[in-house]
Formats: sequence, C-alpha cells, structure tokens
Amino acid sequence: MPLTSTSSSALRVAVIPDSFKGSATASEVAEAMAAGVRRAAAVLDVEVHIQTLPFADGGEGTLDAICSAWGVQPRTAEVTDALGRAARGRYAVSEPNATGHRIGVIEAAEANGLPQVSDVPPRPLEATTYGVGALVTAALDAGAEEILLCIGGSATTDGGAGLAQALGARLLDEHGHDLGPGGAALAQLHRIDLAGLDPRSLKVRWRIACDVTNPLLGPEGAAAVFGPQKGADEDDVAVLDAALTRLVDVLTSQTGRDVRREPGTGAAGGMPVVLMSLFDAEILPGGALVAETLEARRLSETADLVLTGEGRLDQQSLHGKVVDTVRSITPRRTPLVVLAGSVDITPDQQREAGITAAFSIAPGPQTLAELQARAAERVAEAAEQIFTVYLAGRSRTVLHPPIR
Amino acid sequence: MPLTSTSSSALRVAVIPDSFKGSATASEVAEAMAAGVRRAAAVLDVEVHIQTLPFADGGEGTLDAICSAWGVQPRTAEVTDALGRAARGRYAVSEPNATGHRIGVIEAAEANGLPQVSDVPPRPLEATTYGVGALVTAALDAGAEEILLCIGGSATTDGGAGLAQALGARLLDEHGHDLGPGGAALAQLHRIDLAGLDPRSLKVRWRIACDVTNPLLGPEGAAAVFGPQKGADEDDVAVLDAALTRLVDVLTSQTGRDVRREPGTGAAGGMPVVLMSLFDAEILPGGALVAETLEARRLSETADLVLTGEGRLDQQSLHGKVVDTVRSITPRRTPLVVLAGSVDITPDQQREAGITAAFSIAPGPQTLAELQARAAERVAEAAEQIFTVYLAGRSRTVLHPPIR
Repeated sequence: MPLTSTSSSALRVAVIPDSFKGSATASEVAEAMAAGVRRAAAVLDVEVHIQTLPFADGGEGTLDAICSAWGVQPRTAEVTDALGRAARGRYAVSEPNATGHRIGVIEAAEANGLPQVSDVPPRPLEATTYGVGALVTAALDAGAEEILLCIGGSATTDGGAGLAQALGARLLDEHGHDLGPGGAALAQLHRIDLAGLDPRSLKVRWRIACDVTNPLLGPEGAAAVFGPQKGADEDDVAVLDAALTRLVDVLTSQTGRDVRREPGTGAAGGMPVVLMSLFDAEILPGGALVAETLEARRLSETADLVLTGEGRLDQQSLHGKVVDTVRSITPRRTPLVVLAGSVDITPDQQREAGITAAFSIAPGPQTLAELQARAAERVAEAAEQIFTVYLAGRSRTVLHPPIR
Repeated sequence: MPLTSTSSSALRVAVIPDSFKGSATASEVAEAMAAGVRRAAAVLDVEVHIQTLPFADGGEGTLDAICSAWGVQPRTAEVTDALGRAARGRYAVSEPNATGHRIGVIEAAEANGLPQVSDVPPRPLEATTYGVGALVTAALDAGAEEILLCIGGSATTDGGAGLAQALGARLLDEHGHDLGPGGAALAQLHRIDLAGLDPRSLKVRWRIACDVTNPLLGPEGAAAVFGPQKGADEDDVAVLDAALTRLVDVLTSQTGRDVRREPGTGAAGGMPVVLMSLFDAEILPGGALVAETLEARRLSETADLVLTGEGRLDQQSLHGKVVDTVRSITPRRTPLVVLAGSVDITPDQQREAGITAAFSIAPGPQTLAELQARAAERVAEAAEQIFTVYLAGRSRTVLHPPIR
C-alpha cells in the first residue's frame, strides 16, 4: 500500500483543517482533503503519507473535532440549560494518555448556550451556568483528571456562580440562605461556603480556551460588552456589573487573589472568575490549547506540506483562529496551503501571515448556498488540483496519466 | 534582471490564454497571468522566464489576440455591412516574416456580422459578404500574401458570392446581367465571369478558420442549420438551399471541382464554397490555424510549465477551443494548468483531456457579474497562488518570504 506507507521517501502531507461552518465538520473537511491528495498521488503514482487531524479553535465544533481526532464518541449527560430546564449536553473524555492521564473536554454552551434558550424571551439576569457544572461532574465521574473548558456562545452572565454551585459550593446571602440562579442574585452574596465542594474539582487541572481578553468589570467587561447580545438592556447591564463586582469582591476576600483585571475574565459572562479564583484555572488561546491537546505539532513538524482550511479566510483568521494556530505550529520552511469557501484577504496579507498559498473551493460563480451544499466535494477537488500542481513542480516533468 | 533572464537555469513559463469573454481580452488575461507568476517568483527569489502569447480559436477575439501577439495595431477599412450599408471594419497585416511573407488576418464578421445588422429586421435572403471582400482587398493592398479568414458570426447565406463580386468576379444571369446582393439572387445564376478578378486573389494563400463540419446543402447544410439564427423562416431556408445549389452547380461546371460535400462548406452561409472553388482555400480548425500562425509551439515545447485559460472550462473547451489547442501543442511531459472563471468539468474529464490541473479564479461565492468585474485581478491572484504551490513542490522546502 504505497499511499499509506511511511517509508522515508514518501511525501508527508499533514491535513489540519477547521470545520467549514454551516457545511462540513472539521472531520469531513479533513477526509475530503485527504481524498483529494490521495487521488492526485494515485494518478501520478507518487508515494504519499497523509495524516489528518480535524482541528478547532476552542469555539463551536471543538468538541466534535477533538472527538474525531481522538477517535472517541461524545458522551451525553443530563444537564440543565441556562434557564434551568432539563436538557442533554455532550462532553468527551479521552482514553488514558502515555502517563495514564484522561482529559475531559467540555463545550460549556452545550449546557448554557444561547441557541438552546432562544425559544423564550431572554432572561439575562437569571441565566445560570449550573448545567455546565453538571457536565464537569459527568466528566469527573468518567475519570477526567484535566478539564479543557471551551466557554464561547453562552447565554449567561453569572461569573461562573452556577457552575460553582453545581460542584458543591454554597453561595450564601447575609442570612445564610442559598442564592437563586443567575447573575443578578450575586448582589446579595455574602459568603461562599466551600465545605461541600467536590474534592476532585480542586485536584484536577483546569484549562479554559478563550480568545477574548476583556476584564471582568466596567465598560469593557462581561456585562457591558457581551450582555446586550444576551438580551440585557442598559439597566440589566448595570445590575449585572454590580453583581459581578460583589462576586469578585467576596472571592478576593476569601481567596486572597483578585482576578478581576486578568485578561479574559470578562469572557462568557465572567465564567472564568470562579474557575480562576477557586480552581486556579488557566486561560489559554483556544487554538493553541487544542493544538497542544491534540499534539498537532507532531504532524506539522514532520510534514513536507501542510494543508489547512476554514469556511472563510479573512483578517480574523489570522488572529487566533485555526489557520493562525496551524501556521504557528508549522515550521517556516514548510509550505502551508489554505483552502477556504471564501478567500477575503489579499496575497500580501496572506504572505505576511505566513501562508504560502490560499485557494477558494468555488468552481465558479455560485451562491453561498450552492457552495455549501457540496462543500466537502469541492474541498476534495481543490485539494486534488493543488496537490497535483505541487507534484508538478516537484518533478519538473511528468505529469499526465497514461493515455487510456 | 533575473525575472526576464533566459539563462538555462531559469524556469520557463509559457502563458497562452484565450480571452475571458465578457470580461478580459486574451492579451489582458496573458498579462495578468504573467504578473501573478512574476510576483510569486519575485517573492521567493526564483529566476523565471515568462513568455506570453494571447491566443484565440478562430472565433470572436482572434483578430485582437493575433494583433497583440504580433505587436501590431489593427487597421481599418471602409466596408459595407451585410445589408450593404457603409461601415468600418478592422483587419490586420503582419510584418514580413523570416521569408519576407506578410499574413493578412480578417474576421469576416467585421463586415458581415450579425450584431451590426441587429438594428433592423433580418433580411436573410439579401444579406451579402460583399463587405468581406472589401476587407480582403484592403489586406491585399497592405501587402498580405496570405489571407487567414475567420468566418464565424455571419448574418449571410450567400455562399461567399458577395465576396467574389467584391474581388471582381461577375455573377451573371442568363441575360448577362449582374446579380443583386444576397443568397436568394443566386437562383438566377447562369455563369461567373472571372475576367475582372483581382489577380492577387488567385495568387495568395487562403486559409479559413472553421470548426464546423457541415456540408453546404440539405438538412445539415448552411441554410437549414444556420439560416434560422439569421432570421430565415422555413420558406427562406428552402429558397436559400436551392440558390446555394445553383451556385455550387455553376462553380462545379466552371472549375471541374465539386466542393459541396467538403466538411465546413456549410459554415458561415456557405462562404467557403466560393473560396475553395475559385482560390483553392484550405479549411482548418481555428485553434490549430492560430497556433501555427503565431508559432505557439515554439513556446509550449520549451516551457517547464504552460498556463492557459478561458472564461468557462467545460466539455466544449476540450474540442477545438483554445484549451484543447494549447493541450495539443504542449508536450505530454509538460504540466498544463488552466485558469477559468468557471470550471465545469470533473477532475476525471480534465485528466482524460490531458489537463494537469484546473482552477477557478473565483475567490468565493460571487455572482458572474462580480467575478467579471475584476477578472484580470482575479486571474493574477490565482496565477500567483498556483505558481507559488508549483515552486513549493519544486523545492520541498522554502517558501516563506523573509519576516518583515
């Protein structure tokens, strides 16, 4: 089987794409790219070793990409949504790694996501991360010794209070009564009782995938910047900002560590605040965290050619997204080619970002819907064309298949 | 100047595109492709020798492409249109070639084209090629010793009678009176008086660019197949078919050669009939004729990489069009890459046609109008990306520009 040989003469191609949002998962894109490369190699009878790694940047699709990369199925837990209604949320736990270590991967939005509560008018003051805690507990029950938490897409602004409650912390008012769910209730917070906290939550390593650098409070904070998209009006924003202030004041006085100005504490309604204060959680850029978790560098560093891609390659792609991450882990000597539904940067911008070449998969004038409907097929075709040209350059001769 | 050096180590790239109809001439496309290749080479500091040859298939745009390739301006002559109205038509005459030979290039439609007479109701019975004769005369006056005649897009069905008249032949009825213009009048043809024929028309070499293989008469003939698109109704078709029969009968009896079944005599309202009968004109596929005229093989045979392109790459492209012609003159060992506004063939069809790789210039979902509005720019960008990948394959290392 020359196509899967790892003999030293085989060309090594690493395929590390994002999903194409709205049309193909990272796993489907990776398979399509590999199929295209494989066809080109087969036609020209070139030995090639392809390694695929579905990738993600810590946002939506990260759980799927990591499950694909690990070859595990997502598990499901009974949780509650941001409004406390019964729901089911997915999470994943890895097989033990070389040191017997299991990693739990959680997309918080599975339990506190905005889409799940879009069927009713928004209740930004009451929305809670309690369900996220249920996911964490499920992962701990499944043996996770490290929690990788992706926090984007939330409907909540509770500073992670619900999550802490779900893990056994008691948030008490001055009369010793437990607070109700949601950010607004935190205005009454007097003390946090940690006696009942799940001991595993203190023992595991917590890492938060987050590309936002906002602080917790004020005009750049969780309530002011992200509250409105969760349905908070001007008054709600003021209420939530004051309540989060109360939360972090209490946490600071109990732990001796004040995290309110740490970059990223303003993300996801302040969810990192409780995690950093109580569990010493670390915030890392999503792409880098996924890359490390999936050991992506092992592939990119030994490849002759790296292929990546995403739905739309634009200026944003060059800052913390998958393409940027893949570039950062790919040696400068190695060509990096990007396939995208839409290429919206100039060749100069692309070169400055360290991308060797970028191609749209569009076969001609098409609507977005037309392109999305056959995205995986188009990715495979584009990868085949590109790899054929790469091989053409490699040989300086060849490259037509035998006449039939 | 490493980029234009012809040193033996330089990569040789031949750029031989068609026009992108509706958006860019062959010359503009060739320049854009060259610019893209040049940019990629400059960024990677690779020595490249680019030769551009705007190309055509004998259809619309052939005159422009040949003028660009020769570096001459089209000339203009006073002619008449298919309805006999005063008009101006363009033609070209080459500089003397190595043997002191000048070639005249004529697009007949400059004088008998359908668009020029679309302002009035069609008159298929009277439409004449007389004006085409005026173009030929102008080319002969300018020293042409060979006539390359492109015959597509005509409004006429006169078997080339008008053209013969313009060159001095007299088409006489049984009373010795000159026939009026148009195909229908040929029903009265009794004899052709060649005494006044321009002697140069008998001396020069005539070659007709034609990809149609229809015979002159009958259900597959000039009147039946092409008459309707020139406004002929069923009765007109019968009249014209009979009149063309009369013309070819007279020609056969006077010359001893019957051309009515020669493939292509049914093209352009039978225009080849007079030219083959009187001047021994040769019919050749347009692309092949242009290739020979422009000595395209000199470029393609010495190139390391050949780039071509057209507005739309589809099954038709693979039969006599520019892409097909360029493929036919490119050695099988040499990679041939096609750029197109729209790629409408599968990778399998493409490979069977001998095309190494094909790319759309679309940068993402777009309308045709959006793509056409910036076609040349998109061609340059695509060529840059493709050539960069080619170079990436060539080196197996490289390929990022120095960090700025």
